[in-house]
Amino acid sequence: MAMDNIDNNNNEVINKAQRAKIASLPLSLLSAEEKNEALASIAALLAEKSDTILIANEQDVQKGKKFGMSQAILDRLSLSAKRVADMVAGVRQVVGLEDPVGEVLSHAVRPNGLVIDKIRVPLGVIGMIYEARPNVTVDSVSLALKTGNAIILRGSSSALASNKALVAVIHEALTKTKVSVDAVQLIESVDHHAVMQMMKLNQYLDVLIPRGGADLIRNVLENSTVPVLETGVGNCHVFIDESADPAMAIPLTVNAKTHRPAVCNAAETLLIHKDWGKDNILAVLKALRDQGVELRVCSGLHELRPDLLLATEEDWGTEFLALVMAVKLVDNVDEAIRHINCYGTKHTEAIVTQNQQNAVRFMCMVDAAAVNYNASTRFTDGFEYGFGAEIGISTQKLHARGPMGLPELTSYKYLVYGNGQIRK
Amino acid sequence: MAMDNIDNNNNEVINKAQRAKIASLPLSLLSAEEKNEALASIAALLAEKSDTILIANEQDVQKGKKFGMSQAILDRLSLSAKRVADMVAGVRQVVGLEDPVGEVLSHAVRPNGLVIDKIRVPLGVIGMIYEARPNVTVDSVSLALKTGNAIILRGSSSALASNKALVAVIHEALTKTKVSVDAVQLIESVDHHAVMQMMKLNQYLDVLIPRGGADLIRNVLENSTVPVLETGVGNCHVFIDESADPAMAIPLTVNAKTHRPAVCNAAETLLIHKDWGKDNILAVLKALRDQGVELRVCSGLHELRPDLLLATEEDWGTEFLALVMAVKLVDNVDEAIRHINCYGTKHTEAIVTQNQQNAVRFMCMVDAAAVNYNASTRFTDGFEYGFGAEIGISTQKLHARGPMGLPELTSYKYLVYGNGQIRK
Repeated sequence: MAMDNIDNNNNEVINKAQRAKIASLPLSLLSAEEKNEALASIAALLAEKSDTILIANEQDVQKGKKFGMSQAILDRLSLSAKRVADMVAGVRQVVGLEDPVGEVLSHAVRPNGLVIDKIRVPLGVIGMIYEARPNVTVDSVSLALKTGNAIILRGSSSALASNKALVAVIHEALTKTKVSVDAVQLIESVDHHAVMQMMKLNQYLDVLIPRGGADLIRNVLENSTVPVLETGVGNCHVFIDESADPAMAIPLTVNAKTHRPAVCNAAETLLIHKDWGKDNILAVLKALRDQGVELRVCSGLHELRPDLLLATEEDWGTEFLALVMAVKLVDNVDEAIRHINCYGTKHTEAIVTQNQQNAVRFMCMVDAAAVNYNASTRFTDGFEYGFGAEIGISTQKLHARGPMGLPELTSYKYLVYGNGQIRK
Repeated sequence: MAMDNIDNNNNEVINKAQRAKIASLPLSLLSAEEKNEALASIAALLAEKSDTILIANEQDVQKGKKFGMSQAILDRLSLSAKRVADMVAGVRQVVGLEDPVGEVLSHAVRPNGLVIDKIRVPLGVIGMIYEARPNVTVDSVSLALKTGNAIILRGSSSALASNKALVAVIHEALTKTKVSVDAVQLIESVDHHAVMQMMKLNQYLDVLIPRGGADLIRNVLENSTVPVLETGVGNCHVFIDESADPAMAIPLTVNAKTHRPAVCNAAETLLIHKDWGKDNILAVLKALRDQGVELRVCSGLHELRPDLLLATEEDWGTEFLALVMAVKLVDNVDEAIRHINCYGTKHTEAIVTQNQQNAVRFMCMVDAAAVNYNASTRFTDGFEYGFGAEIGISTQKLHARGPMGLPELTSYKYLVYGNGQIRK
């Protein structure tokens, strides 16, 4: 139980979690300047040691190739001088953001004279479980430290050499600062048991954030007793209403689907009001096909375009993350709302319409983190929202919903000032 | 999957969860007036049917006696005309509170012209798993409906007749209002499997709130895949610093321990600075003993009062919820902070001191929902904080910390207004 001593055991996860927990208390009390100095030191040393990082990354890439990793995953794993420079720029950007810790959220004086202040504080220790991309390591560390949190990282085994090199640089950079080296911990065990252990460490971890595919997130949701911030799965829809202007609806739909198909705010299903007009309907299908999108359509559309694939029940619930789109005709805005509330993942849903009443109905009744009126689904993003940084996009309703920036990595506490009050 | 149809199956939990989910959407759109009318109707009918409720409660009490239920639990289970009247008054009080739903939490206009509003919305469907007290049924329903949430109740089997009678009255009262009867569901199965099912119903439940003993809460935390709001376990401490005025410290400690020993904000351990003075130390121990408190003391105190029990390691981590208190001498404020951060449950911690520097250190470094300076631990409570109502006291750091009132039963969504914006 003793929190000020590291247990003499050889278990990597417990040992590192204890170190992070102990480091989190002094870290929570640092000033914005002290935390910014630590981040600036990290940025400078990452830039200086870019070559070392690229050499380590090359080991991961070679191993990936040897074991037949797909080109898409190799792309996400691979670093370049440009990508390291982007990481450095990202850390420097976080330095420039406002520190939310210490903000007074409310202040009350009660009739009995008690003064009750609600103050923003760090969460404590954040656990991250994530997949291939090594930039997540640096992003997460900079956001955690900026908000006064310690962090325990468990990246994928395929990026282990890269992550070890990055964390070694971060540790070296921190030695000259007020932030303890122990505030950043990398779990190096590639054993899946290490992940299971992290999910049960309620004593040391205040929150667990999974970032990656649907399977990873489901595994964490099902097995973690540590509170989880669910991120990322986006089965997003665009609904084109009867009154939609095709000059707006068509480019907006193409943007939502094709601008970056592999990310969570890309649209996966298109719903079209059956009375939008045959020419308009055929035009939007053609525009998507011209961008290389494979369409899977409902039976009504299949009559218009028998050359297209018929959608299956499963397609309506699938996050394709690729140039594939399911398309369905609906009778009215209410059918669109029902379809979305049934198959959506509460991420981002868009309506294109000139009918204000339908827009209001859709925006009120669709249950999602973001509901967009005449705007592409692609805007659900911390940077587009003006948060300056993003740790992920929450699809749950507790704590944080939608893009999560710095305040979402904090909690609060009540400071109660008395002069001897007792309860009558 | 179809959310607008009730599956034709005989499973009580799934069937009722589907009904609650469907009822939650129209409920989320009702005005404050419409929700208040429903609450007023419930209050009036509860008052009118007080006798019916008392007859049903008497069945539970008789069954409890027959099966040897302890007097303490029988007391919590038993209703009286006065207790029903208190429930009615509680519902009427909730009518008078401000409706948080629809509040604009932020408003931004982005450089590309997008308008982004962050709006408070209901959580959706709340699951409650709770123990004996039937008043929790009525409290939870009124808070859930006021905030536009549907609710699924699973009380203890020992209170089933009482809860059935209460929910029957609530249902009858709702038939004349805009709130669907389906928005309030009582799980009647006494099979433990029903509880396990609720904990996995992510498709229909947005949050699960356990209220009861430590075992109940641990079971829900360990098994639920639905996000949980952890409430209630309070191993709270009072720390009397070297400079504390005994005229303040002694009555404050006695109040924190004895005012209502069975509740979560009662103090369980007393920490005393070793240099507070022998007379003061003996005086606080005597004052506690005079109120019937059994003391379990550290070895240092045992030398002063060899007649008192020696505390075990387990005592420091125990929420006694009774007239028992563990007492320990500490060297300084830092040892007090370390002890609390090791054994505390992040609920409420108090310092009594005249030393401002130590007060600040304690308030910053103790990790708890509420940290009190010269004020009894007993003040951590929604009513004492001026919230007007309370669904429980959160001891976790995500979403809500400390007393949870109406806003803590809500989430938010982003409404994004554009005129055809696409992402470049």
